[in-house]
Amino acid sequence: MITDFDLSAEAPALSDGISTVQRRSAALEELIHRDPGRFRVLTGDRPTGRLHLGHYFGTLHNRVRLQDLGVEMLVIIADYQVLTDRDVADHLTEHVEDLVLDYLAVGVDPERATIFTHSAIPALNQLLLPFLSLITVAELSRNPTVKEEIAQSQQSSVSGLMFTYPAHQAADILFCKANLVPVGQDQLPHLEVTRTIARRFNSRYGNGVPVFPEPDALLSAAPLLLGTDGAKMSKSRGNAIALAASADQTAKLIRGAKTDAHRHITYEPTTRPEVSSLVLLASLCLDHDPHQVAEDIGGRGSSALKETVTEAVNTYLAPIRDRRALYAQDRDHIRKVLRDGNERAAAIAQTTLDEVRATMNSLY
Amino acid sequence: MITDFDLSAEAPALSDGISTVQRRSAALEELIHRDPGRFRVLTGDRPTGRLHLGHYFGTLHNRVRLQDLGVEMLVIIADYQVLTDRDVADHLTEHVEDLVLDYLAVGVDPERATIFTHSAIPALNQLLLPFLSLITVAELSRNPTVKEEIAQSQQSSVSGLMFTYPAHQAADILFCKANLVPVGQDQLPHLEVTRTIARRFNSRYGNGVPVFPEPDALLSAAPLLLGTDGAKMSKSRGNAIALAASADQTAKLIRGAKTDAHRHITYEPTTRPEVSSLVLLASLCLDHDPHQVAEDIGGRGSSALKETVTEAVNTYLAPIRDRRALYAQDRDHIRKVLRDGNERAAAIAQTTLDEVRATMNSLY
Repeated sequence: MITDFDLSAEAPALSDGISTVQRRSAALEELIHRDPGRFRVLTGDRPTGRLHLGHYFGTLHNRVRLQDLGVEMLVIIADYQVLTDRDVADHLTEHVEDLVLDYLAVGVDPERATIFTHSAIPALNQLLLPFLSLITVAELSRNPTVKEEIAQSQQSSVSGLMFTYPAHQAADILFCKANLVPVGQDQLPHLEVTRTIARRFNSRYGNGVPVFPEPDALLSAAPLLLGTDGAKMSKSRGNAIALAASADQTAKLIRGAKTDAHRHITYEPTTRPEVSSLVLLASLCLDHDPHQVAEDIGGRGSSALKETVTEAVNTYLAPIRDRRALYAQDRDHIRKVLRDGNERAAAIAQTTLDEVRATMNSLY
Repeated sequence: MITDFDLSAEAPALSDGISTVQRRSAALEELIHRDPGRFRVLTGDRPTGRLHLGHYFGTLHNRVRLQDLGVEMLVIIADYQVLTDRDVADHLTEHVEDLVLDYLAVGVDPERATIFTHSAIPALNQLLLPFLSLITVAELSRNPTVKEEIAQSQQSSVSGLMFTYPAHQAADILFCKANLVPVGQDQLPHLEVTRTIARRFNSRYGNGVPVFPEPDALLSAAPLLLGTDGAKMSKSRGNAIALAASADQTAKLIRGAKTDAHRHITYEPTTRPEVSSLVLLASLCLDHDPHQVAEDIGGRGSSALKETVTEAVNTYLAPIRDRRALYAQDRDHIRKVLRDGNERAAAIAQTTLDEVRATMNSLY
């Protein structure tokens, strides 16, 4: 337990090793429970389609948990980060509204959390310019997540937008001086760039008074849920159960899920990934231990497993789906949530930009 | 003479060769005289210090000429492009106000021309994001002017800001839909990036209706004025005559100017660069042919040449310096010019950004 916890001084660098970051996250969790008011969280999604169970148990659930603990939260809909995908760009409004619907359905409370779109906050985006001056092309090039995204996107050439992504993310996080960012392990290098930019800005322009916090990573142990085909869960593969799917669609997807040749159901993620992912999904929805879930099914085989999973998922999602259907009938409300969120985010961004411009002697 | 002059369809690409661009510029000049109202010019400077005679005869003189012909003009003070220079950043306010003073002194009329600072227009800066999505890292890397700036800056590593400079310049030019940019030959590759971005934006999002013009280059035949040491004129080398310099400072600088061993004064830029640069400077101030200026001095040698140059420069600059001194006493006026310009530019930027967001389906 950390008694006198100095966010900016003690946060470990990624180079200190992952176990250090994990220990730090555990300490942060303790502090969040004791004093949630000292944290501001930035989180968000790219509007590429409806959210699914992977998103839910990976991040959404955790966001609502933090919100309900009393942590202030800003949720960015990163609509400028989908520009490279023409099909997505064509349906941007629809995708953005779908995201808001999913947020409201799972329990993000727009009175407490600020939901906003990237493209609506010019003062946030302007931070990109000073931030780009604090990071080198070499540093941008060697960011592993950018490298991976480049490989995944299979583009013959990388756009300037994708290349500068870590600097954009720094603007997204620092515009509201978020000091806590829930991330998976693969996103740690990105956050490290944000921390570097914050540190360099403070040291170059701060005159001893730091303008930006160096945000902490809150590592979340996202459960490894596979898609129904055993591959990574992804909307575009059609292997994911959307929050908005109907009970019937859910049942059909799970009925077609890949299992294996062994009749006796066990929870062994390494050797039986597909079966174990189904067991895990049921266990998450039932809030039971996965080994217990597997044992309860035992020799009744994969069809019994699938029945259990379907029942568990549909029961768990029922109230979420009901809320979603209700909100979906009131598009005006969705747009109002966004307008309000954008207004709040714009005010925060303007305050920060004013401070940045004063610090940089560029208030004329 | 071009009779039916279609700006967007007929503008030549740089790959068509420099002579094509030159012919186009000549045709544009003719059109400017006939119909100045169809042009909007974007031009500007980086606030790195007081402007000198190289700036004056290179660009300022031409700007005032265009303005007085009735061309609408926006003058950007690119204060985010000096961030890599710590010393400059420390004196940003001073440098920016000095630029405004120089502009007013030479005859830029803030009622007709819009003088504004880059950092004050978030809606302009936001355009960087969609624009970066339309340009590849390979294209940014091969821009020759960026390459040269990188070499000149002698930095061990290039910042993300410098690397993405051509996209920033596209935002600077396109936010106000400028269709004409006065440039030197070395800046043509930059403008080519702007034209590429405009074209790609229109084709990707325009639905047949172009949002941005593909701005034309107006090649200006900037006279080759050397510094008093025979090297490139540059504030940091101390070899340039600032517009704001006193008559005595000017006389002293010219007295110390490098010449050559030949007593007889001639105008031969290739073989006698230093003497010819002095002759050229006098000829520009006197509005005489440089060969005539040289002949008038003839065998009286370099001291007579220097007297002629000093007299010509000080006479030419006297009214400019008087105006500058007058304006310098009224800093409130300078700040008001900037505030008004920033307001006008912000309104233009907001209109363009709204249009861009509507075109991209990101108005929620």
